[in-house]
This record gives sequence, C-alpha cells and structure tokens, in this order.
Amino acid sequence: MTMVNFQGTKYLNLKRGVELENGRRLRDVSVAYETIGNLNKDKPNAILIFHALSGSAHVYKNGSKQKGWWDAMIGPNKPFDPTRYFIICSNILGSCYGTTGPSSINPETGKPYGLEFPFVSVHDMVKIQKYLIDFLGIKKLLAVTGGSLGGMQALEWSVSYPDSVKTVIPIATTLRTSAQNIAFHEVGRQAIYSDPNWNNGDYYNGGVFPKHGLSVARMVGHITYLSENSMKQKFGRRFRKNNSSNGIDSQFQVESYLNYKGFSFTNRFDANSYIYITKAIDHFDLGTKDALLRFKNTDARFLVLSFSSDWLYPSHQSKRIVSTLKRNQVDVSFCEIDSNYGHDAFLLPSTNGLYEKILTDFLRKSFEEEGD
Amino acid sequence: MTMVNFQGTKYLNLKRGVELENGRRLRDVSVAYETIGNLNKDKPNAILIFHALSGSAHVYKNGSKQKGWWDAMIGPNKPFDPTRYFIICSNILGSCYGTTGPSSINPETGKPYGLEFPFVSVHDMVKIQKYLIDFLGIKKLLAVTGGSLGGMQALEWSVSYPDSVKTVIPIATTLRTSAQNIAFHEVGRQAIYSDPNWNNGDYYNGGVFPKHGLSVARMVGHITYLSENSMKQKFGRRFRKNNSSNGIDSQFQVESYLNYKGFSFTNRFDANSYIYITKAIDHFDLGTKDALLRFKNTDARFLVLSFSSDWLYPSHQSKRIVSTLKRNQVDVSFCEIDSNYGHDAFLLPSTNGLYEKILTDFLRKSFEEEGD
Repeated sequence: MTMVNFQGTKYLNLKRGVELENGRRLRDVSVAYETIGNLNKDKPNAILIFHALSGSAHVYKNGSKQKGWWDAMIGPNKPFDPTRYFIICSNILGSCYGTTGPSSINPETGKPYGLEFPFVSVHDMVKIQKYLIDFLGIKKLLAVTGGSLGGMQALEWSVSYPDSVKTVIPIATTLRTSAQNIAFHEVGRQAIYSDPNWNNGDYYNGGVFPKHGLSVARMVGHITYLSENSMKQKFGRRFRKNNSSNGIDSQFQVESYLNYKGFSFTNRFDANSYIYITKAIDHFDLGTKDALLRFKNTDARFLVLSFSSDWLYPSHQSKRIVSTLKRNQVDVSFCEIDSNYGHDAFLLPSTNGLYEKILTDFLRKSFEEEGD
Repeated sequence: MTMVNFQGTKYLNLKRGVELENGRRLRDVSVAYETIGNLNKDKPNAILIFHALSGSAHVYKNGSKQKGWWDAMIGPNKPFDPTRYFIICSNILGSCYGTTGPSSINPETGKPYGLEFPFVSVHDMVKIQKYLIDFLGIKKLLAVTGGSLGGMQALEWSVSYPDSVKTVIPIATTLRTSAQNIAFHEVGRQAIYSDPNWNNGDYYNGGVFPKHGLSVARMVGHITYLSENSMKQKFGRRFRKNNSSNGIDSQFQVESYLNYKGFSFTNRFDANSYIYITKAIDHFDLGTKDALLRFKNTDARFLVLSFSSDWLYPSHQSKRIVSTLKRNQVDVSFCEIDSNYGHDAFLLPSTNGLYEKILTDFLRKSFEEEGD
C-alpha cells in the first residue's frame, strides 16, 4: 500500500485520547481533515460531510491536482458552494488516510497496530469528528451529510449530538445494516483472511501486502455499487481486445475492469482498515427500540435521499428512516431520485439535475432562515 | 475434495471421444447418469433434467440414503412423477461427479487434467447428453428442463436438437449471461486463483486443495442465490451464540452460515470444475442475431418460469426468452411465480403449490396429447 498524502489536509491531535464505545481507550488519536471556504461571523454556515468506506478527507479538489471524492457536488454554483458555506470533511477513525487506524503506530509498542487496534463503531467515528467541530469552535452545524456509511454517520450524529446540528441529509443509506450487506462484507473479509500475506493483520513491516485478498474484496464491493443495468450498458457482453476465447484469463471487459479496480484499490487502501470499517458498518443499528427513541431528542430538519437503482441501500431502507423520523415527530422530506447508476449514484452528478437542485434548495432554505 | 459417489449412478463411456465446439477433442469421455421410472413402449415418456452449476446426476433420492437435488419436484404425485415418466439426469461435462472434467485422468499423460482440460461450452454439455439419449434409444424426449445453468442447457438443446424434444421448460434462466453475473463469477474465480494451494490448477496429487479460495467463491455465489428479504427473514441481524462483540471472527449468524456453506462446499466440489463451469455459463449467449434465428427451427412447446425475488436471473430475462420465442412463432407459456427465496426458489417447493401445479399440468397435457 502506498500512503496517499493530500495537499491541504490538516491534522488535529487528540492527545487526551478517545474513549471508545466498547470501553477501550485509544491514545494519541490523530484526525485528518480538510476545510473549504470561510466561516461567517457567528459561524452559521458550517457543513460537515462524512465519507463512505474507502473515502478520505479530500472531499474537494480545491485547487489541488488531486480530484476530490465529491467534486460533483462541491464548488461554486454547486450544492455545497464554498463561496457560501464552510465545508469540513475528516477522515474516519479506523481508516488509512491520516486519521488513526490499524496501520497507525501503536504508542504502546512503537509498531503498527494491526489487529491490536480496537474495534471501532460508527458512534466512535462521529465522536472524534465532534472533537474536531469543538476545536473549530462551531456550536451548531448548518448541516451534516454523507452517502452510504457517510449517511450512517449523519444519522448517528443526529442522535448523539442533537443540539449541534440544524439539518441532516442522509443519502443512500439505512438505519441498520442488512443481512445481505453483512454477507457481502464477510465475503470480502474472508478473501483478505485467506491471503497468506495478510498474516493475521501483521504485514506492515514485511513490505508484502495482502493485495490478492483485498482486491477480491474490492471486486465484490464494486459489483454492489453498480446496478445490473448500468453494468449492462457499460460492458454488456463485450470481449476484451486481444482476448483468447479460451484460457483462465479475463475474456470479457467487465472482468478486466473489475480486476483493474480491485488491484488499483490495493495501491491506495489498507486491508486491515477494510476489515475494521466493514465491521463498523455491520454493527451499525439505529433500528433497535432504544435507538429509535433517541430520534425524539432531535429538532433538526431531515432530507432523506435514495436512488432508484441502488440495490445495496435500496429505497425501502430510506423509507424506513423516513417513517421512523415521522413517528418521532421529526420534520423530514424524502426523495427517491431516478438513476441508472446503482449505489454509486450518490457520488455522481444526476442526469436531470434533480439531485443537485434538491440539495441546493434545501441547504439554501435552511441557511437563509437563519439570516444570511 | 472428497469425491462423492452416489448409489445408482451409471456410466456411459464415449470411447470415440467428443469433438468440442472450440475444435478441441476430448478422448474417453465418461458420462455419469441416473434414471428413474420406466420407459413406456415407443418411449414417449422420457424427460431429461439438466442440473445447475454444482449439481450432479443424483436428481432424486430414489430409495437411496442420499438426498437428490430436486426431491422437491420428483416423486409419486409430484410434477416429475416416476410412476408416469422416465426421468434421466446426467452430470455435465467439466463437473466432478463422474462425468469427465478437469479432475479426471488425462489419457495423454495419465495424470489429472487440471488446466490441460479444454474449455467447454453449454453446447458441449448438451452434446454429450444427446449421445446418452441416443444410447438409451430415445428419439424424441417428452421434455427437457432445468433451472439456472440447467435452463440454459434446455434452451441450447431446443436449438441444437430441435427434432428430438417435444416440450422445453427453462426455469430461472436467461438467453445470455449478464455482465453482472459474469462479474460475480469472476470474483469467485479470482478468489480461487489467489489461493496459493490452487497452484495454477495443479493440486490433485498434493492432497492440499484450494479450499479457502473455493469457499470464498461459494460464499459469493450463495448470496446471489438468496434474496435480500429471505436473508433478512432467515438471519436478520441476529448474533451467533457465544459471539464476542469484538474480534475478527464471525459475529452475526449470517456470517457463520455463509462460512459453513463455503467450507462444506469444498468437501464436495472441485475448484477447477468451478472455474470451467462458470466460464461456460459466462460464454452462454443465445441472444446474438444468429442464435435468435435458430429458434425458428423448433416446433417444441415452451413453458418459461421465473421467480419474483430472483435477482440473479430476474424475471425480465425470462420475459426476453418469451418475446424471442414469440417473434419466432414458437408456442410459449410464461409464469412468474411469487416467491421470497430468490434464485434458490427453483429448487424448492412453492408455498402455494403454484410451481408444482403448473409443471404437473403442462407435462401431463403434453404427455396425454401423444396418447398415453
């Protein structure tokens, strides 16, 4: 794995450490984050964006050469307009883009944590981001938002810190991870465990990484991010150039695409982070009786968005978020956006501009109510 | 891998060998098959059932201690009633249950083929079954049927041997394998290739099999055989007994179920067979212009069946079979059967008996027309 360093990433060091939901304590936690735009007087214009499984704090290119993961939605005249809003995005706990995770040095041993890293939850992820928001002196965010795992963090934030957010925009996500999603994650993890180079998570100093296992895990994931129809349109049954019609090599374009995506992922992501973050997603559950009651404490306004061809987080899961919020007398709007792109649609511009328009209007209305 | 031997399996030896679709020739092909019931005078009551990816000739328990893979549909007063019909099922080319495949001895070398085994197609699979039907002296089958890859064989039979079949019943299948299905297969194959014990397909004499890789492949497959909803009902988010809430071990029931299914599969199936058979499925394509014209030659009557929650071979793929047949003036009936069980539904009894009734009536009508 080659560690990617983004220009513009800043670091907050939580020297006091962090108490985790499971009772364990992490010392010396580093939080990597980026900010775009400027905070207005009294700080009414701050938006916290949460990233998904493999994302980073680099949400926006922001003049750098490195693309941001949500350039489609951020920029002048886009929904998250940095001439208007102050945008914050930080790398999540357990990841490998600057925030502390299993590839970080364990201060107890002076060596990378590996499996010594404690398991973390979605609550732990938002907790360290609350420290970041406190550090930035922001009392109430205009909005928290994100897609997929990012949407889970937005929901978790709304129940953990109900007084610190005005609007919540969970996108392409769920109240609780489904058995099917747990199953796909477990396939990916087993692929990693099966790679002898994984070596029970202890591979950082050998220079040989469990690339085969992580690649297979990413390939499975990638299929779930697309739709049957988008794969048909993108690849159909087209053969690769120079394919031999026999042999074990990839023959179809869809195969070589997936293999490419899998292997390129291993150059930018850590296998142990993949394990820890998928476990955190699996354990995410705001659908229990106790959790459902926690939504009573929020007076934030919600906008829930889903995409018609997303079968990883299908619309019926978003509708369940909506009905739960309604039962708790929470102000919530919902839109299922037509898209052919499956779960990936949340990262992409929409074909008819509806996605952008809904976000733009919702944010603007929420912001202007406060008095610009 | 432990080779499973079924009581009642017979073997046809094709000493002349088989010319494959790709021009290669297999010497000394063995065809494992089972028959149930008796052939009437003039042999009007023979039904050929094709199995799917991991099946065998042992389609029916037939008094043995070993369950058959389609016991749900075969037996007295069931659709495929052996007191009325003569039922034939043979193991497919490339498999590992008695018919020649990559784990068979290569007569050229005296050692198991491994990757020296030539790639085979769905057409090759039905071709050796045609030799079997000829050997049994049957000129015209009352019906050919099967689900999934079995349904592909039924379709292939109808265009390759149009004069030798009266009715065709493709179930939960497609005219051409989709990009998404190729993608899932490729994940499984890459998991096998990544297992160092696979050893480029040469593992039969070492006694160490690529169990990890094959297990991961089967886990992926298994998810695609179920529906999101059936996984929710079967497992939900229930934890395993004695699970520790942290650690890399499986914590949810769905995880331990999949791991169990994956590993138990490695005791009964050959990794190279998995590769060869999934490749044959990927290359199956009766949706090309040339192939579509071949349906003009059949005067068989078709019954196409799909299941509402099957997302591996969704109903729209069955409807495409139907519209193709109709365009070729073929007599075709279609039913989408309501089911919660995903693709696996084709193997199972239906909750309301509709699946059984449709099959029973269709077969009986076709049979009685001939004059019993």
